[in-house]
Amino acid sequence: MEVAVVAIGTELLLGQIVDSNSARIGQMLAANGFSSHLQLKVGDNHERIVAALELALHDADAVITSGGLGPTQDDITREAIAEVAHRPLREDAGVRAVIEDLFAQRGRPMSANNYRQALVPEGATVIAQRKGTAPGLVVPVGEKVIFALPGVPYELDDMLANEVLAELRARRRDDTVIRSRVLRTWGIGESRLAELMAPRFEELEGSNITIAFLASGIEGVKVRFTVSTTDVDEAIALLDHEEGQARRLLGDAIFGVDDDTLESVVAQLALTQGVSVAVAESLTGGMVASQLVRVPGASRWFLGGIVSYASAVKEELLGVTTSTVVSEEAACSMAEGVARLLGSELGASTTGVAGPEIIEDQPVGTVWIGMSYRGRSAARKVQLLGDRERIRTYATATALDLVRLTLSGSARGFGLVGLNSDS
Amino acid sequence: MEVAVVAIGTELLLGQIVDSNSARIGQMLAANGFSSHLQLKVGDNHERIVAALELALHDADAVITSGGLGPTQDDITREAIAEVAHRPLREDAGVRAVIEDLFAQRGRPMSANNYRQALVPEGATVIAQRKGTAPGLVVPVGEKVIFALPGVPYELDDMLANEVLAELRARRRDDTVIRSRVLRTWGIGESRLAELMAPRFEELEGSNITIAFLASGIEGVKVRFTVSTTDVDEAIALLDHEEGQARRLLGDAIFGVDDDTLESVVAQLALTQGVSVAVAESLTGGMVASQLVRVPGASRWFLGGIVSYASAVKEELLGVTTSTVVSEEAACSMAEGVARLLGSELGASTTGVAGPEIIEDQPVGTVWIGMSYRGRSAARKVQLLGDRERIRTYATATALDLVRLTLSGSARGFGLVGLNSDS
Repeated sequence: MEVAVVAIGTELLLGQIVDSNSARIGQMLAANGFSSHLQLKVGDNHERIVAALELALHDADAVITSGGLGPTQDDITREAIAEVAHRPLREDAGVRAVIEDLFAQRGRPMSANNYRQALVPEGATVIAQRKGTAPGLVVPVGEKVIFALPGVPYELDDMLANEVLAELRARRRDDTVIRSRVLRTWGIGESRLAELMAPRFEELEGSNITIAFLASGIEGVKVRFTVSTTDVDEAIALLDHEEGQARRLLGDAIFGVDDDTLESVVAQLALTQGVSVAVAESLTGGMVASQLVRVPGASRWFLGGIVSYASAVKEELLGVTTSTVVSEEAACSMAEGVARLLGSELGASTTGVAGPEIIEDQPVGTVWIGMSYRGRSAARKVQLLGDRERIRTYATATALDLVRLTLSGSARGFGLVGLNSDS
Repeated sequence: MEVAVVAIGTELLLGQIVDSNSARIGQMLAANGFSSHLQLKVGDNHERIVAALELALHDADAVITSGGLGPTQDDITREAIAEVAHRPLREDAGVRAVIEDLFAQRGRPMSANNYRQALVPEGATVIAQRKGTAPGLVVPVGEKVIFALPGVPYELDDMLANEVLAELRARRRDDTVIRSRVLRTWGIGESRLAELMAPRFEELEGSNITIAFLASGIEGVKVRFTVSTTDVDEAIALLDHEEGQARRLLGDAIFGVDDDTLESVVAQLALTQGVSVAVAESLTGGMVASQLVRVPGASRWFLGGIVSYASAVKEELLGVTTSTVVSEEAACSMAEGVARLLGSELGASTTGVAGPEIIEDQPVGTVWIGMSYRGRSAARKVQLLGDRERIRTYATATALDLVRLTLSGSARGFGLVGLNSDS
């Protein structure tokens, strides 16, 4: 089944926004066995959107659009789709009620423009707006279909993963079952991963299982297995088998599966081991704490943190006595200091040079991660590449990974927690 | 002059890589007054690339492609362009010599595949490869032209800014100049903004100035003015005028222009006013501090922060005495506490309910932002919608905005800093 993708918005053509929506739609389609051979971008112009939709529909069974569903004058996707589908727009009372409700909740006045978002092509199905004011639309065009999704990524993602995928599956004409599983890794580069996986890669050549490596920046390298078969149980059994093979080859570079994140895995480990956590941050400036707090229920194991950006804060609050703040000693003192100050069992710390200026003659990208557990501490240096933001985010992920490895008693952790050291 | 953009690579369709090349090509075209109404993505398939190129050439005077010029079997852009242009491929001795030279320099063996990169459509011009092994191509197709650029961003950018731009300028048949300016806003919804701007919107109808509203989630709503004229100075004067009109209509909901961010504006205000800043965070968990630290040189005005996630940390470190942590009193105490503890003039705080669980019978999304300045403090409640992550990021942006409004002495700030209160 062929699905075309059309991203709508003049800001995309002008390069003011990078079209990441189409990439995420493409990922979803690939992971679920739908082909997508054409992806288009068009601006907020009625004739051009109509032409793009007609072009996209020509060779595809379905078209997914993103953008142009907002309340303002330049949001004209609704009108263009109505024309292509030969279906007049009608106000949908249910959609209107939801929008009015949202505005009432926010205590904001609703403008006349907002009512445009309640317009729906006749015969179309509405995808309820759970996260914004724009509903999604499922608009039949003969035997084909156009899905219109909002351009705001988190509104789009939600509809894509639920209603759009379900409708595409229902429309698929064969009984192919496609399942994928993503193993999440941190700390090994894409080419090295491919090298380690090469034996399995070759064995699977020509089978119904494919392996893809997705270098995903701050999310690490993802290893995705996709199985194409006709039976769900068989698909799951094959994925279980592949996961086992990969774990043998990659060890604890694999930190999780599918939706796991470094912070969700840390949370799980801290909870099951009953370890309370606090962090002291310099160059990451609160990013490690903020990532940990992303996990719902973090208050059960995360106490808080100190952002010791100024040296005086490191000294006075955390008891750092060394004169060099980018050092093993400072990282250890910070980790110990925050555990002491907040009363946690584990303390983690970051200190380093995010740039653009160097500090203490250390090159940009020099980062120390400290770890303290029940009074003992250690630190490790990593050298990161890139600009200020990249160095800070990679330092954050590295710190989270070292907390994970430490809590799981891995040989690659600090050896502070585990069967031998735990009292 | 109309220029279409075609990004080539199956990895783009699969979403393994986000197509940022087309966005940067679009930026370059817009900034130099070329229109671009169609941008396509296709996979590494000969027929599909040929079809995409023919489609792109149909309504455009020029086509810029990126990707598919590498040495491997799936790099087939050269062949597809040769077919579209009806020009056979010939090995170019000059290109071959440069590639051989590059391999000799790197001391690596050159594979047979690499010679494919020396193939050039007859009559095409080569753009020398200064940063990689792939040369760019300028291939005439009748009166039109295809520019083939490598997919590696820094190789592409270099050729784009030099040879491609020069050739496009030489081919341009008119002297249109296009310039845009983006006003950044926070705190007013897209539809309300559109309503406030409606009078200006209508006055500009049919003129050479367009207004677009871009709801950009956590980045607020952007208002973009685009001017199309024949003179750069005139374009800039028109944008200056529109900016003035917008500022009269929107007031200090406008926090910045183009690349400004809430944190960069806060940094600028703190620096120029000589005010040191610290933050105490509960539900945002370090995100406010982390955003502030994004600004290079933050150490000149940002001292650090306390992530007081556990109640005990609020009480013991920050001196919060009230028993309700989601309250005006707690927000004020936190702001005062962190300013006292870290020795800053300004202290900001966040406390609230990020969900999914409610706290103290307060609904999810209830957030108090506190502000303290030289011993005086105040707090404000906002009610945010969405999931945990959205509430946390919007609470962060709201806090940054309130710091901005407070530092700028705005009537919408806390009235703590300004001509009357500043000693």
